[in-house]
Amino acid sequence: MKPILYDLCGANPEQRFSPYCWRTVYALAHKGIEVEVRPTPFTKIKDIAPEAGKTVPILVDGDKTICDSTAIAAYLEDAYPDRPSLFGGEGGRAASHFFESYVISMMPIFASLVVKDVHDVLAPDDQAYFRTTREQRFGKSLEEVQAGRENRLGDLAKALKPLELMLASQPFVGGESPLYGDYVIFAALQWGRVVSDIDLLEAGTPVHAWFERLLDMYDGLGRKVATGQAAAAA
Amino acid sequence: MKPILYDLCGANPEQRFSPYCWRTVYALAHKGIEVEVRPTPFTKIKDIAPEAGKTVPILVDGDKTICDSTAIAAYLEDAYPDRPSLFGGEGGRAASHFFESYVISMMPIFASLVVKDVHDVLAPDDQAYFRTTREQRFGKSLEEVQAGRENRLGDLAKALKPLELMLASQPFVGGESPLYGDYVIFAALQWGRVVSDIDLLEAGTPVHAWFERLLDMYDGLGRKVATGQAAAAA
Repeated sequence: MKPILYDLCGANPEQRFSPYCWRTVYALAHKGIEVEVRPTPFTKIKDIAPEAGKTVPILVDGDKTICDSTAIAAYLEDAYPDRPSLFGGEGGRAASHFFESYVISMMPIFASLVVKDVHDVLAPDDQAYFRTTREQRFGKSLEEVQAGRENRLGDLAKALKPLELMLASQPFVGGESPLYGDYVIFAALQWGRVVSDIDLLEAGTPVHAWFERLLDMYDGLGRKVATGQAAAAA
Repeated sequence: MKPILYDLCGANPEQRFSPYCWRTVYALAHKGIEVEVRPTPFTKIKDIAPEAGKTVPILVDGDKTICDSTAIAAYLEDAYPDRPSLFGGEGGRAASHFFESYVISMMPIFASLVVKDVHDVLAPDDQAYFRTTREQRFGKSLEEVQAGRENRLGDLAKALKPLELMLASQPFVGGESPLYGDYVIFAALQWGRVVSDIDLLEAGTPVHAWFERLLDMYDGLGRKVATGQAAAAA
């Protein structure tokens, strides 16, 4: 039996956007592990495996149920040591936690660019849940958070400057080929790409080219998903 | 014969501040390699080994002369494989280039905080060289670049946010103990600490505590250096 991956989805089950789940989707592909994906709306997550955790991704592999993308990556690395390494050694494993923190530090920027778009691709029950919890967190409406977003694309480019500079010396965070650190940053940008019609990355830039390379990997894994505002109604 | 490290210095040869040299000083300590340090002012670098390069650090190890901190770290890792690893594997080696780029992305902030202080600790010949080249680069006087710096300490704290967040889950970029990525970030902060009387890091913060841990390492290696504006005249 294939392992089962519970992945977040919008009103359209093919529109899967979670920046945490995309890390895991790419980590599984990197390890060459096929899974059965179970698209799950926000308000159904609590019923999956309450004892394991309250967030997705959740991976069920045989008798193991693992919640949280960081824990899943560590599990995959240790449980499948003969498959390609996600970290490239213990130094890379430790560095992956820096990349996670790097993305967390950018989350306010991402949210200010696409949070209303996330809302708009959700099913009605999820919309109500998402609006309430996020507006409480931000202290203002989703519309207000996202207003004037074009002016904040420069903030994202600035935050991605370390990646841009690094790409002058190597094609991936992992070196000549991607490692989990690539997937962690990719997944946040993929989140925006899947829910939104705004272009987060300027075409022709090194970061855009890197992102496109990752979209192409594993037979275009990142492209096999419904995207944009129109997909929600599809 | 011990390897020789050419390290940048101010008017006081004991005031060694280069953010690139400090990476190498810590990398050598990590590998347990004792060196003879040759303090070198800016205007004497060109005479060290013109065929090897025009910047410090320069390491002379037997018949090998290596210029550039990145090349030196790679050399040390490969030439001394039996000593503690600087990278913790190939994933960590690749990630170290991200940390270098991360620091480069912060260089304008660092410069705006301490560039006039750097100038002021140099010997007269170096001062003239430094002022001319840096004012050309910035398009304004060193005094103008550094003016109002207190207002920019928040920019540094913001840029260090990924590190701060990561420190909630592990004590070093390298995990339970430091790797080259720690030294790369440390070295930039040490640059400011050595030349300036301004406190770049707020006491009591996780990044400050991490920096202090690194200052303490290798018998307080980072503390055995003349610091501050008064040291230049000492």
